[in-house]
Amino acid sequence: MKQIELSFSNSSTTFLFNASFAAVTTFTAIDNTVIITDENVFNKHKRTFKGWQTIVLPAGEQFKNQATIDNIINQLISLGANRKTFLVGVGGGVVTDITGYVAGIYMRGLSFGFVPTSILAMVDASIGGKNGIDVGLYKNMVGLIRQPAFLLYDYSLLSSLPRAEWINGFAEIIKHAAIKDAAMFRMLEQHKLIDFKKDTKLLDKLIQRNALLKAKVVQEDEFEQGDRKLLNFGHTFGHAIENSYQLPHGHAVTIGMIVAAVFSEVYKKFADTPRLTKLIQQYGLPVYQAFNAKKVLAVMQSDKKKVKDEMHYVLLAKIGKAVVQTIPVSDIEKMVLQLAKNKA
Amino acid sequence: MKQIELSFSNSSTTFLFNASFAAVTTFTAIDNTVIITDENVFNKHKRTFKGWQTIVLPAGEQFKNQATIDNIINQLISLGANRKTFLVGVGGGVVTDITGYVAGIYMRGLSFGFVPTSILAMVDASIGGKNGIDVGLYKNMVGLIRQPAFLLYDYSLLSSLPRAEWINGFAEIIKHAAIKDAAMFRMLEQHKLIDFKKDTKLLDKLIQRNALLKAKVVQEDEFEQGDRKLLNFGHTFGHAIENSYQLPHGHAVTIGMIVAAVFSEVYKKFADTPRLTKLIQQYGLPVYQAFNAKKVLAVMQSDKKKVKDEMHYVLLAKIGKAVVQTIPVSDIEKMVLQLAKNKA
Repeated sequence: MKQIELSFSNSSTTFLFNASFAAVTTFTAIDNTVIITDENVFNKHKRTFKGWQTIVLPAGEQFKNQATIDNIINQLISLGANRKTFLVGVGGGVVTDITGYVAGIYMRGLSFGFVPTSILAMVDASIGGKNGIDVGLYKNMVGLIRQPAFLLYDYSLLSSLPRAEWINGFAEIIKHAAIKDAAMFRMLEQHKLIDFKKDTKLLDKLIQRNALLKAKVVQEDEFEQGDRKLLNFGHTFGHAIENSYQLPHGHAVTIGMIVAAVFSEVYKKFADTPRLTKLIQQYGLPVYQAFNAKKVLAVMQSDKKKVKDEMHYVLLAKIGKAVVQTIPVSDIEKMVLQLAKNKA
Repeated sequence: MKQIELSFSNSSTTFLFNASFAAVTTFTAIDNTVIITDENVFNKHKRTFKGWQTIVLPAGEQFKNQATIDNIINQLISLGANRKTFLVGVGGGVVTDITGYVAGIYMRGLSFGFVPTSILAMVDASIGGKNGIDVGLYKNMVGLIRQPAFLLYDYSLLSSLPRAEWINGFAEIIKHAAIKDAAMFRMLEQHKLIDFKKDTKLLDKLIQRNALLKAKVVQEDEFEQGDRKLLNFGHTFGHAIENSYQLPHGHAVTIGMIVAAVFSEVYKKFADTPRLTKLIQQYGLPVYQAFNAKKVLAVMQSDKKKVKDEMHYVLLAKIGKAVVQTIPVSDIEKMVLQLAKNKA
């Protein structure tokens, strides 16, 4: 077990790597805690939850909405949850997003922690305090930024993670490498997914490297005025197709990364789109999805990164170095229409 | 016009007393702003809103719920509101509570300001950053603490305030006097409501005194670890009867103050219940409401101030000095049952 504490603007988060779920009790007493999880995680790890008050949600991004929040709030009221109640989200990114949001608004704010159970949640979704829900096709339209008291990594919970979810998680790992860590990019090129599945020590190193990479970016820029924006690489286009085409988040992001790489060729003379494409495919992830340009552009118009007639788009100057480029919406429209045609 | 800036933990609020609505433009550009108001205020001051993008809500506490939030979010999406959009809540406490809450969660947080249009909102509801919505009978069950960028006081907006709402607002003024300001209590004893309605200068002094009294309590203790709790005087019992019996907030609070005064006789040898009763009645406010003890106790059980089997109850040591007393829930039950019997 390795413990690292990072301070954010209003609070600090303790990272517990290679830990056991039982260590949750070092942060909160069992009778003062409500666990929020989903059916998949609950059914696969029933013994883990024995003795804990637990709210079990239906699984899936389609339930990351206000109806689920209403349901949780009513259950918290029934359980007699008060201002001192501690919430623990145990699950993937949907569960941690929902738990963080409910913890932010129930009785104007409860303390909370996360036990991520997917690669995606471990390296990205559960870190950084962004939480929230979708509104129709608009992803994360409503939410808060508020840091968890702890993040506990119990790799034994990955035993039941489907292969597709392992793959999904590597999208954000490749993203981190592409925007900030050329050495990790090379290391990923030298491995395959199976290497990390078989070797917990290698996996632990990779998870720590990614979790701390993201956490430190957030620490420097919690409210996304600068460098934190770089983490949105692949996400502007990705979010626009994710709900419309019901793609796994990781797939939407790798497709979005290739779109951003193509834009980077135009604005930054980026020359490594083939190398990025190869790595994405090496980990079983997609690089293209047929799409309706008008539909996708309509969703992009509502992106949180749009301001008036321009968007802040994250591009690559080179592998390991991302930059924010302001692009007129009209240019984005032209490029997106072109992309839709190219591959149609 | 008088301008005062107060700093809170994460931001500061500019108070503009005796100002004109038009001064809103010193804080935010008209084309970058969405006003949120209710039908009553909108219909009475249509000219004021000319040229502003405006979301008009149905009026009343019964609409301070998630359905209204959903409606506003959908309208903000339709208006193309983005992270740089500024929200201005123009109305009573319901409007400012709702506006502050939406501003806190839409795209993870927009900047916002308030123009309170009722006495209650001017001296209390719009100050201090607490916002939120009700969940069924549970008041303010969901919300945030987040400070507005400005509070603008335009007394001309009070011209259309119904007499009942003037009376309602004085409940919180009497509360402030009772918990913190014996001199103001004496001043109120020497006046009647009509004096403040007729004399804008006198009113301005009273509003400033109350707004700054509350703001300074909040400044010392934004997240309610200590002195801010005193502002809940009258509210524990008040909130428990307000929605059940559809009382105006001010009425619920003065009834709750008398309940707390009776408890204060038991725990603090408080001897001035008759004087408090007299002042409340002098301003046309009620001191009792027949109630079903079981129903009211059930709502009190879910109060945010309850922890395990005890409640933090705000009592008076004397006029002008409130204290927090920890009272076993079982004792509260006995006293509430007794109160229900006494007057039945």
